[in-house]
Amino acid sequence: MSNPIVPFTLDGASVLHQMFHVRWEEWRALDQHSRQVLVDEASAWLSSRESAEGGEQSAAFAMLGHKGDLMLLHYRRDFVGLLEAQAQVRKLRISEYLECSNSYLSVVELGLYESTRKIHDELGERGLTPGSEEWDQAVTETLDRQKKAMSGRLRPEIPSARYLCFYPMDRKRGELKNWFSEDFADRQKMMHEHGMIGRKYGGIVKQIISGSIGFDDWEWGVDLFAESPLPFKQLIYEMRFDKVSAEFALFGPFYIALRIAPGGLMAFMKDDARSAVE
Amino acid sequence: MSNPIVPFTLDGASVLHQMFHVRWEEWRALDQHSRQVLVDEASAWLSSRESAEGGEQSAAFAMLGHKGDLMLLHYRRDFVGLLEAQAQVRKLRISEYLECSNSYLSVVELGLYESTRKIHDELGERGLTPGSEEWDQAVTETLDRQKKAMSGRLRPEIPSARYLCFYPMDRKRGELKNWFSEDFADRQKMMHEHGMIGRKYGGIVKQIISGSIGFDDWEWGVDLFAESPLPFKQLIYEMRFDKVSAEFALFGPFYIALRIAPGGLMAFMKDDARSAVE
Amino acid sequence: MSNPIVPFTLDGASVLHQMFHVRWEEWRALDQHSRQVLVDEASAWLSSRESAEGGEQSAAFAMLGHKGDLMLLHYRRDFVGLLEAQAQVRKLRISEYLECSNSYLSVVELGLYESTRKIHDELGERGLTPGSEEWDQAVTETLDRQKKAMSGRLRPEIPSARYLCFYPMDRKRGELKNWFSEDFADRQKMMHEHGMIGRKYGGIVKQIISGSIGFDDWEWGVDLFAESPLPFKQLIYEMRFDKVSAEFALFGPFYIALRIAPGGLMAFMKDDARSAVE
Amino acid sequence: MSNPIVPFTLDGASVLHQMFHVRWEEWRALDQHSRQVLVDEASAWLSSRESAEGGEQSAAFAMLGHKGDLMLLHYRRDFVGLLEAQAQVRKLRISEYLECSNSYLSVVELGLYESTRKIHDELGERGLTPGSEEWDQAVTETLDRQKKAMSGRLRPEIPSARYLCFYPMDRKRGELKNWFSEDFADRQKMMHEHGMIGRKYGGIVKQIISGSIGFDDWEWGVDLFAESPLPFKQLIYEMRFDKVSAEFALFGPFYIALRIAPGGLMAFMKDDARSAVE
Amino acid sequence: MSNPIVPFTLDGASVLHQMFHVRWEEWRALDQHSRQVLVDEASAWLSSRESAEGGEQSAAFAMLGHKGDLMLLHYRRDFVGLLEAQAQVRKLRISEYLECSNSYLSVVELGLYESTRKIHDELGERGLTPGSEEWDQAVTETLDRQKKAMSGRLRPEIPSARYLCFYPMDRKRGELKNWFSEDFADRQKMMHEHGMIGRKYGGIVKQIISGSIGFDDWEWGVDLFAESPLPFKQLIYEMRFDKVSAEFALFGPFYIALRIAPGGLMAFMKDDARSAVE
Repeated sequence: MSNPIVPFTLDGASVLHQMFHVRWEEWRALDQHSRQVLVDEASAWLSSRESAEGGEQSAAFAMLGHKGDLMLLHYRRDFVGLLEAQAQVRKLRISEYLECSNSYLSVVELGLYESTRKIHDELGERGLTPGSEEWDQAVTETLDRQKKAMSGRLRPEIPSARYLCFYPMDRKRGELKNWFSEDFADRQKMMHEHGMIGRKYGGIVKQIISGSIGFDDWEWGVDLFAESPLPFKQLIYEMRFDKVSAEFALFGPFYIALRIAPGGLMAFMKDDARSAVE
Repeated sequence: MSNPIVPFTLDGASVLHQMFHVRWEEWRALDQHSRQVLVDEASAWLSSRESAEGGEQSAAFAMLGHKGDLMLLHYRRDFVGLLEAQAQVRKLRISEYLECSNSYLSVVELGLYESTRKIHDELGERGLTPGSEEWDQAVTETLDRQKKAMSGRLRPEIPSARYLCFYPMDRKRGELKNWFSEDFADRQKMMHEHGMIGRKYGGIVKQIISGSIGFDDWEWGVDLFAESPLPFKQLIYEMRFDKVSAEFALFGPFYIALRIAPGGLMAFMKDDARSAVE
Repeated sequence: MSNPIVPFTLDGASVLHQMFHVRWEEWRALDQHSRQVLVDEASAWLSSRESAEGGEQSAAFAMLGHKGDLMLLHYRRDFVGLLEAQAQVRKLRISEYLECSNSYLSVVELGLYESTRKIHDELGERGLTPGSEEWDQAVTETLDRQKKAMSGRLRPEIPSARYLCFYPMDRKRGELKNWFSEDFADRQKMMHEHGMIGRKYGGIVKQIISGSIGFDDWEWGVDLFAESPLPFKQLIYEMRFDKVSAEFALFGPFYIALRIAPGGLMAFMKDDARSAVE
Repeated sequence: MSNPIVPFTLDGASVLHQMFHVRWEEWRALDQHSRQVLVDEASAWLSSRESAEGGEQSAAFAMLGHKGDLMLLHYRRDFVGLLEAQAQVRKLRISEYLECSNSYLSVVELGLYESTRKIHDELGERGLTPGSEEWDQAVTETLDRQKKAMSGRLRPEIPSARYLCFYPMDRKRGELKNWFSEDFADRQKMMHEHGMIGRKYGGIVKQIISGSIGFDDWEWGVDLFAESPLPFKQLIYEMRFDKVSAEFALFGPFYIALRIAPGGLMAFMKDDARSAVE
Repeated sequence: MSNPIVPFTLDGASVLHQMFHVRWEEWRALDQHSRQVLVDEASAWLSSRESAEGGEQSAAFAMLGHKGDLMLLHYRRDFVGLLEAQAQVRKLRISEYLECSNSYLSVVELGLYESTRKIHDELGERGLTPGSEEWDQAVTETLDRQKKAMSGRLRPEIPSARYLCFYPMDRKRGELKNWFSEDFADRQKMMHEHGMIGRKYGGIVKQIISGSIGFDDWEWGVDLFAESPLPFKQLIYEMRFDKVSAEFALFGPFYIALRIAPGGLMAFMKDDARSAVE
């Protein structure tokens, strides 16, 4: 245990999930014209954010169940960008009819178990000692190279799929089963097997992992995007049997939502559910 | 553990449970005529949904205790259908007097432990390797055949029984007792014994299992339907001693409710409890 | 584990505990006359329910602490009776000043560990096989006989004692200590020892157990009735050291309340605490 | 485990902690004169209760943090006295500006591990059998004698110290570490060592233990009184390493508050914090 | 276990974290002039507290996510100072638009594992017995000397960094892994390794530990200060693999916030997020 290998990670876009309840009663008490004005303002903002470049988008989703009515997903350059995003939303006049009941703060993260092993092997062969200046410099160079190579995955566009499944999760630190006490080689092997299942669903489910250690109450956030919801269930059920999930995963609440195009916002606020999401 | 067998499942109707508190004080402040108008509108909607074909029904239930007053159970073709159902309910003017305090989202699921074993045995005998193209095709064919054969159970009508007992549940992933790390053969045997108890109560308690991995905070939802509530207690108590429940079940909150016919809605809203449910 | 013996139980009266907070501010804003009218109506209802025959009573209790102000305890023939009881309370005009913050739903239950053993022994000696038609018939006959013999305990009057202590509880299903995986003989022995302590306090503390598996979030509800509260503490503390409680009991929240006679309701609503309960 | 020794306890004053949030906005909307009238009434009540004899006092404390603004601590002869205390507080007109957000109900308790051992030894030497009539009579006589000798500690005055630290706690009943399954001799030894640490701080921290088994959601309540808060931290940190706390203690929420003299109530309600507590 | 070594600690400034939700709707309903007046008053108070000497500062932070909008961090001489700070905030007229939804109470703490070992070794060599008068006097002298030497770290200024990460934590007291039952030498070694990681980030992340045993619901509070948020994630992720964190740490909720200068308060209250924190 005395020198556990910490996997390298690459950090990308800053991510904020916001879940809102609509104050339907007050909203309906508004006259038709005012509602149109407010929705127009909100649609304009959403539209501009959906087409924003450089991975600085926001998107809206209609939620199923009592956990919320509307979810906003924001990708930004940094946390100041997110602070600004939440302030911009609050400034929209429609926000008077929205209550933010939940949120999740994280940063797009690529976990590099494979590369970590390779880097350790290579640098070990070159006779470098972990923690030495040369070692750190070699690591930084390698990670910088990878960061460039993977910049698209680090600062992605919000996938345009119809369905979103979001949940936060932890790796277990139990008294007998403790992810953070497992050997690096075992962790790497388990993560590899885990990744194989994800790859099987690659054409159907797009997955974006974000890290939230130090930022929110779980260690990671998982966003799955697909054209229909059943693959979420199939993928997660299959994964539940692989070793890393079966023994070491703790799951938070699950959120399911359907993408609302900017043009669909009025339909959503009028409870024309089907046309809002189609 | 390196290649755990995942049981095949068949997925059917999309299911949403909604639990509401009635705002009794505001409701009673309404004049008699308005109340009649609102109940008429709601009864008409409910009536049309109760008689909907193709497994796209909704039903209403009177709840016991403080967890809610009214439960709505929706079966739909897909999640867009459910999004529409919750929007339709919200558009009923009576919704101004309802507060949705809880919900549960799932999909009717037939777990095929028995078939999974048979398929694995058969395909193994035919020399196919799990994960190969031929294997996957053979599995798909078999499941498609079963899906047709079981279409009635996958897209059921809401049973017309007087009592409903609903609860969500998980399979335990403890440090010593972990369902998802158990051998397939052991899991299958336990599920078989478990099913035997259910069969004993078959004529009295109708059971509909729905899966919610990826959709809601527990892995499965269980709906039991019966003409009186005592069999719920007897069945679940007896099951608590079988191995799969004793060692591997985690239970969420329990909800008990009595079916309200569309014609009973006014009695329910007038607190004429007995005539609402009889 | 392959054929665990499930103890027989006898099920009696349906039970609902309701905990209310009084909206004191709004109540005090009412004029003296209206308050009298509302209390008179509520007292009349309570009075009629207190003297109801056939184990269909309701009783009122003043609660200590912030968990509630007023507890109503309802015994009824069945769940429709309870649904009606909660509707009747809601229809009392005083309910506008009550907020139901908690409840518990259960059925009076006599656990027959002793009889279960005897029946199994006897029928085994007669060469019957568990699950056979003859066996089931013999069991049914025996339980029916016991049901008649114990009808007074199955449909009791609400004891007239001054203090009530209510709490729900579970039997533990841990990874190492699991009540439902213990041998029947061990369970029976532990329950016997447990009962011995209850018997010691028999003249002082009256205990009514109700089962709530399938009905509410814990497995059992325990109501203790006594003329002073200290025996509750002594009894439960002593029991905490017996094997079944020490190793296998999980306790929910505890509620302590003092009986309010129908004539004491006005004193209670005027905060004349002592005269309300004396 | 078949005959575990239950430690004798002596039960004294009935205790109720009440935590309140002040509705500051509404309070400040009141005119200066009305505020004075309400504070005068409350101060008069508090003053009379602070000087009450026979261990029937109440005291007020200013709380730090968001868990509450004002804590009231009531010692009374019995639970009817506490019911009356909470009704009296509710009748004070200032209560319209207080919201009771939490409470704790218990009874001052002296745990007699030492005496229990001695009594068992002595009566054993006299050849008496636990549970026999003679045994019970001898125990009752001994406890009655001790009750008289310790009457001051059983019905104490509320210590006049400046700081109060209150927290509830349980003894662990885990699957491996279970206080209630430990041998009496081991429990007694651990409690003795635990007491030694308390004694070290005896001149600085006054400790009053109350029992709440059967009364509230934890097994014991602990009140520490001192002239400054640091000794609370030092004492509890040191105790956390002794065996009984390290292995068998579960702690509830911690509350820290400063004594408000009756004359300080107006300063407190005017947010003149320093003069309220000095 | 019979004489576990308790690490010496030095206690410094009293610390209160307050998390507020802004009542945005009511705030926006205010006219522009009144808002200016209220912000001016609040800015003046904040400005005077930011420049306060002797480690008696307060600072304001803009929060990300739904856990709150505004965090105030107060360092004071003692708990009366904190009581006064919370009263002063409450007296600001802007407080009418703030709702305190959370808080944390603690005292800056330097844990002296290293010194504890040295002192025990030295005094042991001098033949002193722990707990003897000479021993206690020698310890007091040593700690007093260290207290003076470390007075800057015990009563620090609030670091001026742009980002704050705050979370409370416990040391685990499980049935198998129990920090408080570990040997002192092992604890010291683990704390040393843990400190090494902190030191690696020393130039980037400033860490202030405060103790809250006896004061709040977790044992310690951790405040990290840095110019950007990613080092929080990297530092905490790396630490999660060291033995003391992997096996013995339990983490509470995480709060991330950006420093608002007094001059930025109006921008913050106008939702000009970027200029509020830049």
